Amino acid sequence: MHRFSKKVSMTVVKRLPKYYQYLSDLQLNDIEKISSRELASLMGLTASQIRQDLNSFGGYGQQGYGYNVGELREAIKEILGLDSEYNCIIIGGGNMGHAIANYERFKREGVILKGVFDVNPLTVGTVIADVVVKHMDEIDEFIKNNEIDIAILCVPREVGQIVATQITDLGVKGILNFSPLDLDVPSDVVVENVNITDSLFTLTYLLGE
Amino acid sequence: MHRFSKKVSMTVVKRLPKYYQYLSDLQLNDIEKISSRELASLMGLTASQIRQDLNSFGGYGQQGYGYNVGELREAIKEILGLDSEYNCIIIGGGNMGHAIANYERFKREGVILKGVFDVNPLTVGTVIADVVVKHMDEIDEFIKNNEIDIAILCVPREVGQIVATQITDLGVKGILNFSPLDLDVPSDVVVENVNITDSLFTLTYLLGE
Repeated sequence: MHRFSKKVSMTVVKRLPKYYQYLSDLQLNDIEKISSRELASLMGLTASQIRQDLNSFGGYGQQGYGYNVGELREAIKEILGLDSEYNCIIIGGGNMGHAIANYERFKREGVILKGVFDVNPLTVGTVIADVVVKHMDEIDEFIKNNEIDIAILCVPREVGQIVATQITDLGVKGILNFSPLDLDVPSDVVVENVNITDSLFTLTYLLGE
Repeated sequence: MHRFSKKVSMTVVKRLPKYYQYLSDLQLNDIEKISSRELASLMGLTASQIRQDLNSFGGYGQQGYGYNVGELREAIKEILGLDSEYNCIIIGGGNMGHAIANYERFKREGVILKGVFDVNPLTVGTVIADVVVKHMDEIDEFIKNNEIDIAILCVPREVGQIVATQITDLGVKGILNFSPLDLDVPSDVVVENVNITDSLFTLTYLLGE
């Protein structure tokens, strides 16, 4: 649960991972403080946008000093919910599932891969990122016995909705959806779509502009 | 080049691939016409949003009839630039590059995979989606000899900018960027970012709300 109660706009929310990334980089480079102007120039924003964004979470800067990189990073980490751990499963152990399973970053930020599921007999039983791929027949039992917070959906479009309904019925509350369809889920479930084809089409559009 | 000249907002542009997807589905199901109300309910928008969106491209509907699915799909296909073909290369033949190379959809929409490049000796020489992976040493020559429109960047963060500079110097104008960093490119180059970690963090944020 977040420590602030104000409703924050999705535009700001969408920028938070970027703040987190830049602040993590700064910390790695042993930079301890940064002004809103410097941070703005790094991130391609204006200083006033930076101040406004961070104010909407309570404001972490000090007049004439700027931001303490470590503190601001910790604050944003907490706001992003990355001070907690999340148990996750990947559904669909094809190329995309494989790619995601091997994202070092996920584990480093506390998103722990507990299981990978597939229906392909050639994939079931193989090992992906130290996890043995299980058959979808076992998923109900598995979700019931492990506290799964996040499911990463890498299944074909045709079965996306069926799988989403199945796992949300079992109590999964978060879906990172790589299947190219809009999922219909209960209102207490959050879905974040990564639609690669849509991104490609935005690019072909922009190329013609 | 697009046949309209009005500046269209990015919000509308970002919705176009979704229109295209839904209209393609309708066509596959032999549905020939649809009202803005029906299309709105399918897409989770309001009828007035639909009319406004499509009007910004010249308006394809007819009062009391609705939209001709096939015609509207063709119009949006053209707006998205999908009536042309694009030569593309994938840089980075790891799991993510592999996943993208095997996206059937890309080829179906005229985005043709011409080459895959990597530096890993274990990957160079292997075949991904019918393409033999070449070493990065060969990329300059390859881009010069083939008209490459789009590069799909699946390289580690550390080398993302170096590679982007190299390929844009060679004339590549479109980048679909899976490397988790903001690229600095000339103003006539378009970049569309797919930042999977950012999407995960948005999800963990929303889970805490």
